[in-house]
Amino acid sequence: MKEKENKSALIVNPGIEQPPSVNEDAIRRFKERKRKLLTVDEYMEGILNKNITILSQAITLIESSLPHHHELGQQLIERCLPYSGKSIRIGITGVPGVGKSTFIESLGTTITSQGHKLAVLAIDPSSERSKGSILGDKTRMEDLSADPNAFIRPSPSAGSLGGVARKTRETIILCEAAGFDTIFIETVGVGQSETAVHSMVDFFLLLMLAGAGDELQGIKRGIMEMADLIAITKADGANVQKAKLAQAEYKNALHLFPPADSGWITDAVICSSLEKTGLKEIWNTIKSYVDFTSNNGYLASRRSQQAKYWMYESINEALKNHFYHNKDIHSHLKKTEHDVIANKVSSFIAAQHLIDLYFKKYSE
Amino acid sequence: MKEKENKSALIVNPGIEQPPSVNEDAIRRFKERKRKLLTVDEYMEGILNKNITILSQAITLIESSLPHHHELGQQLIERCLPYSGKSIRIGITGVPGVGKSTFIESLGTTITSQGHKLAVLAIDPSSERSKGSILGDKTRMEDLSADPNAFIRPSPSAGSLGGVARKTRETIILCEAAGFDTIFIETVGVGQSETAVHSMVDFFLLLMLAGAGDELQGIKRGIMEMADLIAITKADGANVQKAKLAQAEYKNALHLFPPADSGWITDAVICSSLEKTGLKEIWNTIKSYVDFTSNNGYLASRRSQQAKYWMYESINEALKNHFYHNKDIHSHLKKTEHDVIANKVSSFIAAQHLIDLYFKKYSE
Repeated sequence: MKEKENKSALIVNPGIEQPPSVNEDAIRRFKERKRKLLTVDEYMEGILNKNITILSQAITLIESSLPHHHELGQQLIERCLPYSGKSIRIGITGVPGVGKSTFIESLGTTITSQGHKLAVLAIDPSSERSKGSILGDKTRMEDLSADPNAFIRPSPSAGSLGGVARKTRETIILCEAAGFDTIFIETVGVGQSETAVHSMVDFFLLLMLAGAGDELQGIKRGIMEMADLIAITKADGANVQKAKLAQAEYKNALHLFPPADSGWITDAVICSSLEKTGLKEIWNTIKSYVDFTSNNGYLASRRSQQAKYWMYESINEALKNHFYHNKDIHSHLKKTEHDVIANKVSSFIAAQHLIDLYFKKYSE
Repeated sequence: MKEKENKSALIVNPGIEQPPSVNEDAIRRFKERKRKLLTVDEYMEGILNKNITILSQAITLIESSLPHHHELGQQLIERCLPYSGKSIRIGITGVPGVGKSTFIESLGTTITSQGHKLAVLAIDPSSERSKGSILGDKTRMEDLSADPNAFIRPSPSAGSLGGVARKTRETIILCEAAGFDTIFIETVGVGQSETAVHSMVDFFLLLMLAGAGDELQGIKRGIMEMADLIAITKADGANVQKAKLAQAEYKNALHLFPPADSGWITDAVICSSLEKTGLKEIWNTIKSYVDFTSNNGYLASRRSQQAKYWMYESINEALKNHFYHNKDIHSHLKKTEHDVIANKVSSFIAAQHLIDLYFKKYSE
């Protein structure tokens, strides 16, 4: 096996489901562009000088599948690390229809109007399939797009959740080095991405609709218990009473939840992006959370845990990619999986066969 | 690398935390015993004839770290598969103090008195450290231990959660082949084991204490949303009112939860192992769940998903074991982890270095 192959396990990171051809495509697309690259020093200078154009180019490097782009990107990350970690990282989730974009626009402008610098990122692995990421359509965030204190970056398209999450987490480091003190990471509360977002943010905000009934909201189980705050959106006009009722119900539910490791008590609030109500309160809650967890040491220890978590996650994903892209495995996997589902062979015997097949190559 | 080594990745399965020496110990212990083994046919005959002694010996084979015991055990599993899958698999969790043992004893005797054959298993990876598994102390289940229709098997001691879970899942197959139509899998609701149990059972029962307040109950976040039924225990004497209050609160909370994929609505009930109240109702709820999910096809599809899940879990664990037991990795891991936590290197660059180190060996 060649070294390049091994590296590619982590570099290309196409996820298990994805045929390798996708990488060739990506590489072709990038080659077609033939972007002129700067030196690491030039990128660093631009980032530290808060040059948004250069920041964007640097992020594109991190998102690139081209090995030499990736190498350059990794050098940048290492150079940016000492300048990172000084922001409040906030995960925001909620199903489509909850008004996430308008909420982010309203809360975002509330924050920037207080002199904060806000970067809005997203994790949306499905973006390629769904033609353009959640944040692709910036017209839904006109004010924020035009706001000099705000930087909106769509989700990296293509790739496994692990790959997309890695790129987003690395983008956080660059944005922090570029002086952004508040970072939103948006995701749709219907998939696995929440766990990924939860493991890279300090604060997790869950948006809910009043009276929609959870069966309509489609929030995945377990997500509610990740939330550091539940905000019921669209609490305006005729909706206010319904929103207050929902708020009361969630408050009741929340006090039955086990306490979070942070010692923080999750609350439920109402807000309106339309009438700009409840937004300052949400921002103040986030700031109190940061104070609270800074004082009890949770914030720092959580970030260390997250860094550790992502190291092991990356290792495990690289091992899996290497295994599942092995030709022999690829040709046997589907049949074996079918036999397991048909109860013809036990899950563990099937696994053993594939593992033996994989490692035999190297023992020959 | 020798093949034996590769196999051992899955066979010995000592988990990441555990020093390989433990296996040598286990092997020594087993060698000392020098148990006379039966043939696969003899084990099969015994199991199909519902011979509990032979069933126990077969389970011991599955729990053994000795390669030839393991081989024999795997052959048995394959032979038993056609006879498996005909039981109701029930996960039961709750923190110490909730009265799990007495509950299992009371519900268990309720079930066996209706002519059912019940096997009680446990997943408790910590059992070795905590000197004897949850079910080690059978004196807490005197009636059930003496009940000819009940079979109690303590958690396999030693090993990673993955290893223990695998052995328990394989034990289910043997027990089903031996004619047990109801299987309890007990675990303590404080760790990761719930997810493992949840992914091998049809029904997940969460035991809670009335008025203890979740902060006292220490149930892990997310577990409440796994439950197919919440039973408030010790609803007897002066406790009844408190229990009913807690029941009402949980009912309120539960209706705010997102619906389960099964379409089943989780309820909260009260019961007393002492006064034997609420137990028949719990058993009837479990039976209605089985009818409901059999009719809507969820039960079958969930079991297929679980079989698939365990195949991939086993593969991934074998890959991890092989990686983390690699000498070079072992000697670099702690230092690298420390640098990541100290923010000296990014999680992903650190992972990349270790991955390159690992694969380089085979490219030389």
